[in-house]
Amino acid sequence: MLPDMLDISTLKAGYAAGTVTPLDVIEEVIRRLHAGTDPAVWISRFADDDLRAAARALMAEGGREARPLWGIPFAVKDNIDVKGLATTAACPAFAYAPQRDAATVARLKAAGALVIGKTNLDQFATGLNGTRSPYGAPRSVFNPDYVSGGSSSGSAVAVASGQVAFALGTDTAGSGRVPAAFNNLVGVKPTKGLVPNTGLVPACRSIDCISVLGATAGDATLVRQIMQGEDEGDVYSRAAAPRSLPLAGFRFGVLSGKERVFAGDTEAEALYDAAAARLTALGGTMVAINYAPFRDCASLLYGGPWVAERLAAVQTFFDAHAADIDATVRTIIEGARQFSAVDAFCGAYALEAYRKATDAEWAKMDVLLLPTAPRITTVAEMRADPIGLNAMLGRYTNFVNLLDCCAVAVPSGFRADGLPVGVTLVAPAFCDDDLAVLADRLHRAAATGLGHDRAAAIPEQARLAPSREGLVPLVVVGAHLTGMPLNPELTRAGGVLLKACRTTPDYQLYALPGTLPPKPGLIRTPGFSGPGLEVEVWGLPPAAFGAFVAAIPAPLGIGKISLDDGTSASGFLCEAHAVAQAEDITAFGGWRAWRARGAA
Amino acid sequence: MLPDMLDISTLKAGYAAGTVTPLDVIEEVIRRLHAGTDPAVWISRFADDDLRAAARALMAEGGREARPLWGIPFAVKDNIDVKGLATTAACPAFAYAPQRDAATVARLKAAGALVIGKTNLDQFATGLNGTRSPYGAPRSVFNPDYVSGGSSSGSAVAVASGQVAFALGTDTAGSGRVPAAFNNLVGVKPTKGLVPNTGLVPACRSIDCISVLGATAGDATLVRQIMQGEDEGDVYSRAAAPRSLPLAGFRFGVLSGKERVFAGDTEAEALYDAAAARLTALGGTMVAINYAPFRDCASLLYGGPWVAERLAAVQTFFDAHAADIDATVRTIIEGARQFSAVDAFCGAYALEAYRKATDAEWAKMDVLLLPTAPRITTVAEMRADPIGLNAMLGRYTNFVNLLDCCAVAVPSGFRADGLPVGVTLVAPAFCDDDLAVLADRLHRAAATGLGHDRAAAIPEQARLAPSREGLVPLVVVGAHLTGMPLNPELTRAGGVLLKACRTTPDYQLYALPGTLPPKPGLIRTPGFSGPGLEVEVWGLPPAAFGAFVAAIPAPLGIGKISLDDGTSASGFLCEAHAVAQAEDITAFGGWRAWRARGAA
Repeated sequence: MLPDMLDISTLKAGYAAGTVTPLDVIEEVIRRLHAGTDPAVWISRFADDDLRAAARALMAEGGREARPLWGIPFAVKDNIDVKGLATTAACPAFAYAPQRDAATVARLKAAGALVIGKTNLDQFATGLNGTRSPYGAPRSVFNPDYVSGGSSSGSAVAVASGQVAFALGTDTAGSGRVPAAFNNLVGVKPTKGLVPNTGLVPACRSIDCISVLGATAGDATLVRQIMQGEDEGDVYSRAAAPRSLPLAGFRFGVLSGKERVFAGDTEAEALYDAAAARLTALGGTMVAINYAPFRDCASLLYGGPWVAERLAAVQTFFDAHAADIDATVRTIIEGARQFSAVDAFCGAYALEAYRKATDAEWAKMDVLLLPTAPRITTVAEMRADPIGLNAMLGRYTNFVNLLDCCAVAVPSGFRADGLPVGVTLVAPAFCDDDLAVLADRLHRAAATGLGHDRAAAIPEQARLAPSREGLVPLVVVGAHLTGMPLNPELTRAGGVLLKACRTTPDYQLYALPGTLPPKPGLIRTPGFSGPGLEVEVWGLPPAAFGAFVAAIPAPLGIGKISLDDGTSASGFLCEAHAVAQAEDITAFGGWRAWRARGAA
Repeated sequence: MLPDMLDISTLKAGYAAGTVTPLDVIEEVIRRLHAGTDPAVWISRFADDDLRAAARALMAEGGREARPLWGIPFAVKDNIDVKGLATTAACPAFAYAPQRDAATVARLKAAGALVIGKTNLDQFATGLNGTRSPYGAPRSVFNPDYVSGGSSSGSAVAVASGQVAFALGTDTAGSGRVPAAFNNLVGVKPTKGLVPNTGLVPACRSIDCISVLGATAGDATLVRQIMQGEDEGDVYSRAAAPRSLPLAGFRFGVLSGKERVFAGDTEAEALYDAAAARLTALGGTMVAINYAPFRDCASLLYGGPWVAERLAAVQTFFDAHAADIDATVRTIIEGARQFSAVDAFCGAYALEAYRKATDAEWAKMDVLLLPTAPRITTVAEMRADPIGLNAMLGRYTNFVNLLDCCAVAVPSGFRADGLPVGVTLVAPAFCDDDLAVLADRLHRAAATGLGHDRAAAIPEQARLAPSREGLVPLVVVGAHLTGMPLNPELTRAGGVLLKACRTTPDYQLYALPGTLPPKPGLIRTPGFSGPGLEVEVWGLPPAAFGAFVAAIPAPLGIGKISLDDGTSASGFLCEAHAVAQAEDITAFGGWRAWRARGAA
């Protein structure tokens, strides 16, 4: 029995338990595709029997345990190449048959995922609303009068209606976030270049990002991590070490004063404040920031020379087929012709000025909490004012790629009329992993269900933990233990608790006299057999580890400590001479127990 | 008695010794200005009595010891604002009276330097040859038939002829490097944004750099360091931690095959190879790289949309005063009108592709050694082919700013006809400090004199040492000492030897049994009085220090070690249990002495 929402961890659990097979899932997907009530979601898809054949082939191949998306059905926005289906970018006259899968699609297939088909979008990914397509306007799964959001419109509805487990979108101005908000989904917008764009029809090539729409932050982040990594086909793809965020004690920026614009939607405003309250409850400190430079920067994207990138992407086609292009999209792209190279460079200068101005705001915060969009609109409203209302939708999303940020859109709740409202967490480039952890916590705290299923719980298996990759393990034994006075030195440096355990039995612990705060000294004595001492292993970024070690005062130092699980790691040791007059407290089994006794 | 070349360290030594005053120096500068034989060097300068008054005011102020450029006379390229003199950019119709000094000039004056006047340039800094100015063409100090190089033409000649100690240039395509080469000077082209451009007439605003022309790498680097630091007037100004280069054991890239182009100048080619031989002798390893992607990137600057930045910089003036502009410069700037915003973005895409392609070459090398220019030309030749020969001059310089590199041009020797030839060291952004150290070593090894004085020696006081700023000190006692088997672990990680010294007397050294390579163990024994042990203090970048510490195997570790100079630093200690069976070698005074005895 498959759930209404096909989230990744539930499917994986079913495969692992043997209660369901990829073919079962594909049959259910086919059933739901045929039963689907929104005719505008898909532009093309593989035939039912081809889908069944793919599931059977995957089952014959096996390798489930080594392939993290084995048997997971997904959709691909129709501006990303999938071999065997035309790429249309929602413009039939533009359609071509790709010779190979996009790099992202190839990586997902290699991980065992099953492509179902190609989803509808605002033509050439130019729009945030979902109505700019000759294939129809997908609707919010919560009310067919309302827009799905775009440009990744079909992808969002396919996931939120339970037809696929996740979908690829793209996000240049907010196209991966706005439809997430309008369909109670998570939208992961990676750092620019982290996921390669090889095989993507560009919108603005210098800032396009392939994004993920999923039921949970854990699902979408898993997919993003599988897709990421440089590819020689995309010169903008890049690799960099992940940057960490202070997950305990983070500062989050919020809108204030006249920058709190919700286009009249007071419920959306209240749900934004509710998200801020949840972040505070999760350990964050709220900071009012000045949104004006972010907003001004956002205006560059459609009001400035960046629109020329949209023309650059399709110029030959555009010149020959203007009549085949959606009227609104044509007007926007046509606008590029007014801009000269001088204008383009002046735009670059303006962007640099906004970067400086927003850097001053970033100095006050670690992450930025924004409404994903001021408010949702009906399809009829949008058709009446396609440029103005689209600009309203992008108010809180347009700046993100220009200013090289990553973002995760998460649900925040529902209005009384049942329409969903979302918020977005934004962070500087390469903070994707830690930002996803915060987004997951915020999403769980909101308890909004998954997609169209408002009653669903977020699976525990999808919970995201802070990444340990690249962290240097450090064994702490005294004043740096959790709750002890020097522990903030670790958390402030981006430290993450990796595990609590004990040393091997051949260590002795001494209470060092005259230390403030009080500190113990750990000494290894081969042959000694004690209880083993309570320690914690923390992970620190390498530079922070170096600075930390360099600041340790004598007689303490860092050596290798053997642990009771057979591993060893760098940790606090003490020079032997310093314990000559010290009290041996080994029998207490650890510093915490000894301190507790002392306090009693 | 002042030397022919007014280098900074000689002047400072004279001031410190009390053998000369700033007024003496200014009188000599005035004498040399009146005696100058090249009428095209200066566009404007302060009156003799104003210069004398400035020197007297400085002497009354005092503060020599706290002001690193106290009493040092300098020239400013006439596209950089100096209050009290018009800024012309070598276009009389463009002239304006600046309300304040450029940020760089203000910082130099605050450091005690004395502005003499404004120097000639290729109009709007558009050129690399020095002939494109209504104020005449400055000539190489070695032969008046030959170009000075440009666009910082007057600045180079003013320094090389001994009229000032240093001069500010600018460098967008090589304008701070080519004239250094043609006048036997050092040209420091900082990382983009490191030095703020507030108060500069832009050429290509996104990549312009204010540069320094000096007699030595030490002089020019001192000036650059005083000028650097963010300024709110320049949104492109930026701060970042210096990046280190492996100064011992560095890999340097060289031209090979058909990329070795010297426009027929076989002597320049031989002097390029001589520089490579010197770098090898200085500990470098030569690596042949593929220059093609660098060269192709260079072609973007004048052949592509970046020329639109030149129009963007002066568009209003240009539209009203085209007839007042140098014919060649006008043709170049006029060319910008053909480029659309689409072209500009396509240029950005091309640049990104070159960045990827050159990244692959950077993976093979730490620094790149290039000819500064293929060959020098006569003024007559240049006037006959002003576009073609200028492009030839920029063959090895144009890519540097586009690809976000720093560079230092240094002399490499002289042709038989007495004309100078230079080479340039290029490194990635923010390696400026370490690159200058290498450049200084290379310059000293070439022994080409200073500016027009081929017999002058480079003052020892100007020698550059690797920066220690931000490095974490690490005391090594055994296998990591200089010459010992694990020392390369330090040098490969960017480590720098800070000092050799001894521990305090209360340490004992043991030869640890069964270690490979052999290692000692250092133990502190309070109250013990031994000889103190030979140690070296190395500086490591924090991240490298962290990685290094994390990799140290038990029973060794890192603690604080007390040194005989009263300081202490992190360094190798040993767990006490490990020396229980080890031989006490304290009496040898150190690991090196004990190893030497073992080898005898």
